[in-house]
Amino acid sequence: MSKNITPLSEVGLFGLIEHIEKSFPTRHENTLCGIKNDTAAVRCIDKEMVSSQNLMLEGIHFDLTYYPLRHLGYKAVVASISDIIAAGCHPSHINMALGLSGKMSLQAVELLMEGVAMACKKYDLDLTGFRPSSSLTGLSIATSAYGFVPEKLSLSRMGAKENDLICVTGDLGAAFLGLQLLEREKKVMTETGQDNPDFSGYDYLLERQLKPEARIELLTQLEEAQIVPTSMSLIREGLAPALLRLCKASEKGCNIYENKIPIDHSTSALAEEMEMNPLVAALNGGEDYELLFTISLEDYQKTELNGKNLKDVFVIGHITPETKGYTLETNAGEEIELKARGWGNDEHKE
Amino acid sequence: MSKNITPLSEVGLFGLIEHIEKSFPTRHENTLCGIKNDTAAVRCIDKEMVSSQNLMLEGIHFDLTYYPLRHLGYKAVVASISDIIAAGCHPSHINMALGLSGKMSLQAVELLMEGVAMACKKYDLDLTGFRPSSSLTGLSIATSAYGFVPEKLSLSRMGAKENDLICVTGDLGAAFLGLQLLEREKKVMTETGQDNPDFSGYDYLLERQLKPEARIELLTQLEEAQIVPTSMSLIREGLAPALLRLCKASEKGCNIYENKIPIDHSTSALAEEMEMNPLVAALNGGEDYELLFTISLEDYQKTELNGKNLKDVFVIGHITPETKGYTLETNAGEEIELKARGWGNDEHKE
Repeated sequence: MSKNITPLSEVGLFGLIEHIEKSFPTRHENTLCGIKNDTAAVRCIDKEMVSSQNLMLEGIHFDLTYYPLRHLGYKAVVASISDIIAAGCHPSHINMALGLSGKMSLQAVELLMEGVAMACKKYDLDLTGFRPSSSLTGLSIATSAYGFVPEKLSLSRMGAKENDLICVTGDLGAAFLGLQLLEREKKVMTETGQDNPDFSGYDYLLERQLKPEARIELLTQLEEAQIVPTSMSLIREGLAPALLRLCKASEKGCNIYENKIPIDHSTSALAEEMEMNPLVAALNGGEDYELLFTISLEDYQKTELNGKNLKDVFVIGHITPETKGYTLETNAGEEIELKARGWGNDEHKE
Repeated sequence: MSKNITPLSEVGLFGLIEHIEKSFPTRHENTLCGIKNDTAAVRCIDKEMVSSQNLMLEGIHFDLTYYPLRHLGYKAVVASISDIIAAGCHPSHINMALGLSGKMSLQAVELLMEGVAMACKKYDLDLTGFRPSSSLTGLSIATSAYGFVPEKLSLSRMGAKENDLICVTGDLGAAFLGLQLLEREKKVMTETGQDNPDFSGYDYLLERQLKPEARIELLTQLEEAQIVPTSMSLIREGLAPALLRLCKASEKGCNIYENKIPIDHSTSALAEEMEMNPLVAALNGGEDYELLFTISLEDYQKTELNGKNLKDVFVIGHITPETKGYTLETNAGEEIELKARGWGNDEHKE
């Protein structure tokens, strides 16, 4: 990477496209036309195409004062393909459009796209579209991801049945606590002028915020265990809104248990340090990119959850009739109603 | 439409999705899962899928002080599907993500989405994804459009052959002049405080800027005339960059004629009034959403261009060997080199 700063006006809009193109090899045989053209052309290898649209905006979804551009590019891909994975589909292609503010140099875009390229390599994706334009405000990253599945094999949040078990992957609330840590250290640095943030002991939380991964391996595990979830959804804005939307789409209720919700010990530790309730971070924190899904009791019996077949999967409760509502049993034995916060729920700043 | 102003915080993020959902009926049989889910699922009806990604940002691509929201929603769809049409494909589906600033009320989003719904109806599209989020800066509109074609029938800008005729649809430069008119009247209004802009005689230019249409009918005409263009591209940032990219991708040169470039009389009239060269607007103006394509001489002979078969299509020159470069013959008989302006070429403000 050159230490020079090249303004984007020097390479030009089309020069930038040509420049970026070189870093993105084609991995999939069915990619017919990629970055070179304004549109992507892909041969349909299966009967059904799953797609999603994502938008990340400076100041809302990321703060460039502490967000390394390479990580941001990586995260933009993860955020985009996680939706496809939550539909039970292996993502294969991604298109991207960038709004670039005046402060972005060629080198800055290169760093961002290095992260995109790393994620494309890791998750076996072809970048089939890249469209930069100017931005008067801040950096904007629009992505659409897609993939193909055999007909009627894609999953939605609509299929949960009564008595199905409610499962989540990984752990929840860590990305939110990672963000709180970054915000705290930014504030300290602004106030004291010191440039040595104290992140000791919280590497995991930072990683979850700055370099999240997509839960692609769950799909393989489910396929190997021959389990088809009755419904699935991405945990993007916290467990509560994800579960409520799944229940409402399926016209069902739910009952979950506080002590079953997976929360990492460092999430709890930092939450305690900051005098926050880690449960709130798990329920409404956001950016975990973990999966929420329901499976039938039969499928549960078919395999040992938490055992060798489905790693990192936790049963947190079960689906109830719609009339029972949406309840959480706390560690204190209380039954409280699950609620999703409203507008701005997926945002850092409200 | 209610005259009340409802803040988005009152309906909430998910409430907004549910609210918008109702205005978007499903038109295509192959739409399996739409707005209700985070991802769209669509049955592949043909062998090849064509997709594109677009991003429109406040202050760069539109100015809300004079851009009616309904028109903006309509234009966002047109801008998105025009890429698909330029690939020779009938668009059928569109996904959308919005970044909504604090000044956007529920009613404002409704107006925007009314325009989107109008365009979806006009162009026979299913809105299969709708994802709103907050924005700290301005309104951001990210769209991805897609459609299906029989295998290897999609077009790219890569196939132009020597001696092919270079064709464009409609007329060029009008949208750019429409923008100049709006900017001029905005300035007058700001300076004088008067609120009666003078657009007399220039309705066409305003329409081209504020409510552009996509050239879908060219596809039908080409199919009926059994003509397959050797290459095709969208004229988004003016004729010059579109033609240069097409030539470079095809490894060819070009020779076009100033007096063949279609420019509407009102474009010329306003350009004269503003002491601008209308040719500059046509070459580098932007936002025409017309199509540029090349066809073989045999195909040209097969049909009468400008005649009954291909309406609104104009031959402006021909493809040459790459060594001949990219030339424009002016009305004065001079031969000048075609150049595309650099970064910010597709933007209003540089």
